[in-house]
Amino acid sequence: MAKSREPQRLRQSIDAVKELIITKGLKPGDPMPTEAQLAELLDVSRANLREAIRTLATLDIIEVRHGTGMFVGQMSLSPLVDGLTFKGVVLAGQDFETLRQVVEVRQALDGAIAPTVVERLAGSTEPELDRLCTEMAIHADRQEAFAAEDRAFHAQIASLVENELYRQLVAAFWDIHTMVAPRLGVATPRDLAETVQAHRDMLDCAIAGDLDGYQAAVGAHYAPLLRVLESTRSGSTT
Amino acid sequence: MAKSREPQRLRQSIDAVKELIITKGLKPGDPMPTEAQLAELLDVSRANLREAIRTLATLDIIEVRHGTGMFVGQMSLSPLVDGLTFKGVVLAGQDFETLRQVVEVRQALDGAIAPTVVERLAGSTEPELDRLCTEMAIHADRQEAFAAEDRAFHAQIASLVENELYRQLVAAFWDIHTMVAPRLGVATPRDLAETVQAHRDMLDCAIAGDLDGYQAAVGAHYAPLLRVLESTRSGSTT
Repeated sequence: MAKSREPQRLRQSIDAVKELIITKGLKPGDPMPTEAQLAELLDVSRANLREAIRTLATLDIIEVRHGTGMFVGQMSLSPLVDGLTFKGVVLAGQDFETLRQVVEVRQALDGAIAPTVVERLAGSTEPELDRLCTEMAIHADRQEAFAAEDRAFHAQIASLVENELYRQLVAAFWDIHTMVAPRLGVATPRDLAETVQAHRDMLDCAIAGDLDGYQAAVGAHYAPLLRVLESTRSGSTT
Repeated sequence: MAKSREPQRLRQSIDAVKELIITKGLKPGDPMPTEAQLAELLDVSRANLREAIRTLATLDIIEVRHGTGMFVGQMSLSPLVDGLTFKGVVLAGQDFETLRQVVEVRQALDGAIAPTVVERLAGSTEPELDRLCTEMAIHADRQEAFAAEDRAFHAQIASLVENELYRQLVAAFWDIHTMVAPRLGVATPRDLAETVQAHRDMLDCAIAGDLDGYQAAVGAHYAPLLRVLESTRSGSTT
């Protein structure tokens, strides 16, 4: 399905570069041959090759460091973030459907790792997560947002699972959420206080080994936002 | 973070095209101005614009239909599939870590929607899902794979959730899984039979309203594959 997006000759150049990465056994971060070497090795025109490189760079399969050269990319989820964030913004004029979907996916991801998180944190002390909750509370008291602490909290929770892709997905949907959400309008002081409390409850329940309580706190965490999203859904777009 | 991948002038052209889509209120599928019109409207060079369009096409933000023109893209998850599939293949030479992570994410997504699936299917008859399970069993008896039926089964389960993004994620990770998994070697007859039975159990439990049974069947569904992945992890790469 994705295959039809490029004209055939470009697609062939892209595939040739990918094939070369595989057959040479190159890994993320490894240096690539120069553009001139590639054109000769793969027997493709420079113009075609340059377009192929641009496409692969957009997909984070190749990284072009200007003045240094070309490297195999990290193949991160940044193309996903780029695309979905923009979609959220584009469609926000109509409704907040994309944001609602993103928030639901975040909730599902948080819920799915809950057993692991509670198992890992039960009986431990978590000074760093505790500090983040305290910082959030201080900001909320001043009616300030607390994006940095929020992101760090979720990143640290997700890092308890030994799955780099999962961590990246949690971070990616956090980013999309945070870039699209401001279009909804400013959160009320009540929303801020409720969100701080939900983080604190997640932490307390995990340390207490209380899985049901943790799951309830995850639900409460997204409740203020889903409430706003539901209200815009019933027609009252701002 | 993603912002640093392109040279600044290209990034500005990309942003200008995105801004135009937003300010004109264009939606996925809407026609875009021609390249000539865009170059004039945005006051950017044709060369720069063409690169910007290529990047946006790769991200599925713009769709170029050759001979027809340019349209706002569907902003699907196909860039994610392109990038992660390739990553799975590239890293498969070392180990199957990416595939293991993909399979775990699939399991988490399946698990997270379990309550909704069971709620929706309890007490119903599901002739289409039933037919898919029967087809899978026929293939397994002949020691054939059954990718089409498998994909249709998961797509139909995911469509019970009113969340298009969720559906796309399930499909995307199914695609990545299916493109990378063959590098693991052919599934054994025992694996095939076990996988068929897991789908059947998922369906039966959902219709019976048995959430715990459904969750167990989701676990059993991924067990054969995770077994293989664990064995490759302990050093015996093929």
